[in-house]
Amino acid sequence: MNTSSEHPPHHSGRFITFEGGEGAGKSTQVKALVAKLRALGLEVVQTREPGGSPGAEALRDLLVRGDATRWSPVSELLMMYAARADHLEKVIRPALQRGAWVVCDRFADSSRAYQGAGGGVAPAFIEQVDEVVVGPTQPDLVVVMDMPVEAGLKRADARGDAENRFESKGLSFHERLRAGFLARAGQMPDRYGVIDADRGIEPIAADIWALVQTSFPELRGA
Amino acid sequence: MNTSSEHPPHHSGRFITFEGGEGAGKSTQVKALVAKLRALGLEVVQTREPGGSPGAEALRDLLVRGDATRWSPVSELLMMYAARADHLEKVIRPALQRGAWVVCDRFADSSRAYQGAGGGVAPAFIEQVDEVVVGPTQPDLVVVMDMPVEAGLKRADARGDAENRFESKGLSFHERLRAGFLARAGQMPDRYGVIDADRGIEPIAADIWALVQTSFPELRGA
Ligand SMILES: Nc1ncnc2c1ncn2[C@@H]1O[C@H](COP(=O)(O)OP(=O)(O)OP(=O)(O)O)[C@@H](O)[C@H]1O
Ligand SMILES: Nc1ncnc2c1ncn2[C@@H]1O[C@H](COP(=O)(O)OP(=O)(O)OP(=O)(O)O)[C@@H](O)[C@H]1O
Ligand SMILES: [Mg+2]
Ligand SMILES: [Mg+2]
Repeated sequence: MNTSSEHPPHHSGRFITFEGGEGAGKSTQVKALVAKLRALGLEVVQTREPGGSPGAEALRDLLVRGDATRWSPVSELLMMYAARADHLEKVIRPALQRGAWVVCDRFADSSRAYQGAGGGVAPAFIEQVDEVVVGPTQPDLVVVMDMPVEAGLKRADARGDAENRFESKGLSFHERLRAGFLARAGQMPDRYGVIDADRGIEPIAADIWALVQTSFPELRGA
Repeated sequence: MNTSSEHPPHHSGRFITFEGGEGAGKSTQVKALVAKLRALGLEVVQTREPGGSPGAEALRDLLVRGDATRWSPVSELLMMYAARADHLEKVIRPALQRGAWVVCDRFADSSRAYQGAGGGVAPAFIEQVDEVVVGPTQPDLVVVMDMPVEAGLKRADARGDAENRFESKGLSFHERLRAGFLARAGQMPDRYGVIDADRGIEPIAADIWALVQTSFPELRGA
């Protein structure tokens, strides 16, 4: 992280996303961070993708259930960004405009990883779509939860639920995802922080809090 | 139409789409044309958009029902092309590859009209998405059913069904659609034919058959 980062001018709120492979502990740590920010009296909108608005949740249902080959990577990408456009318009941008903190469980880097690095959709096309849909509403901070693929899948599997379409895609797919997240973080170190997620919940939460304090100087000393 | 058009090399089948505003008689004339081609002993796949494959029909349900402002034009565009990618992969390309005739009730020009001309999505972005999703599988012939907007809406309204999200968008929206379809046809006269749809079913069907025979010389004399 670049410790001198200034807050970008495109919105008055703060936008933090969590990224990483299956079972890396994103949802667990989103919850912990949101609780910490709320304890400081801040307005925090906790949300997730795919989903986060009624229209986007309807698309999520089509995306995360059923057979692993149900949708081609290009169809997936377009559905993910259709859902993202709705989520941004109905939830994220209004919250950022009124100055709230938005903490989102997965966002555009999951499309880059799952449909791009994992699925083979051309990165240049993903960026064309991202520019139209996300545009200036880029996250201020992306927390990349990193851990060995097999251990993460084991965690997600033990949890057990019906939303397992992506989990069922095979180890080499998930290895490409992991490399995709790390490559992106390496290219944009100012806005990305990589967290070793193969540890206990508490030390991970402490590292994330330190990262957030570094990225948002107004939280230092909190 | 250019009467000397040669069949493009990207598939061995024939791909005809019907376009135009609400109630212009597309579905009526698709049925009539399909019957005529089948009577000649040809294999014909009759299909429609949005939809035409199980995944695309699930997206259609999200798109055509509910409030007119449920989705932004960008979300609509991405969902339409996600559905189109599925439809092309599962139905249209396999049919064209085995040499069948494919007759499709609406296709990509409806996205250009409804989300572009009507909804304000940038035409250059639509073409970027079209190039990735449709690519070389462009229609050999596009039949544009043209008629005054109010008369078409009256026809569609009299039919009455639950899929009326686009019908409810207001007259000036539908005027922009009409102009959009005509502009596209004017730009690509080799592959487009405009039919005056404000007449009886029989004379329209006769004109469409003449257009199809002009476009596909192998049908002349049939
Ligand atoms: N640091 C940790 N050590 C051990 N188990 C953990 C840790 N963090 C989370 N878990 C457990 O692992 C499982 C997956 O965690 P979680 O749902 O937070 O991951 P996730 O990254 O959100 O997964 P998904 O990608 O499937 O949404 C849960 O059962 C959770 O309780
Ligand atoms: N030439 C015509 N003259 C009068 N009525 C017609 C004609 N063609 C079709 N109709 C009737 O108008 C209504 C709309 O026709 P149709 O469903 O074929 O239009 P469409 O273009 O497919 O409409 P939509 O865009 O809503 O799918 C139907 O009830 C149909 O029977
Ligand atoms: Mg999760
Ligand atoms: Mg119809």
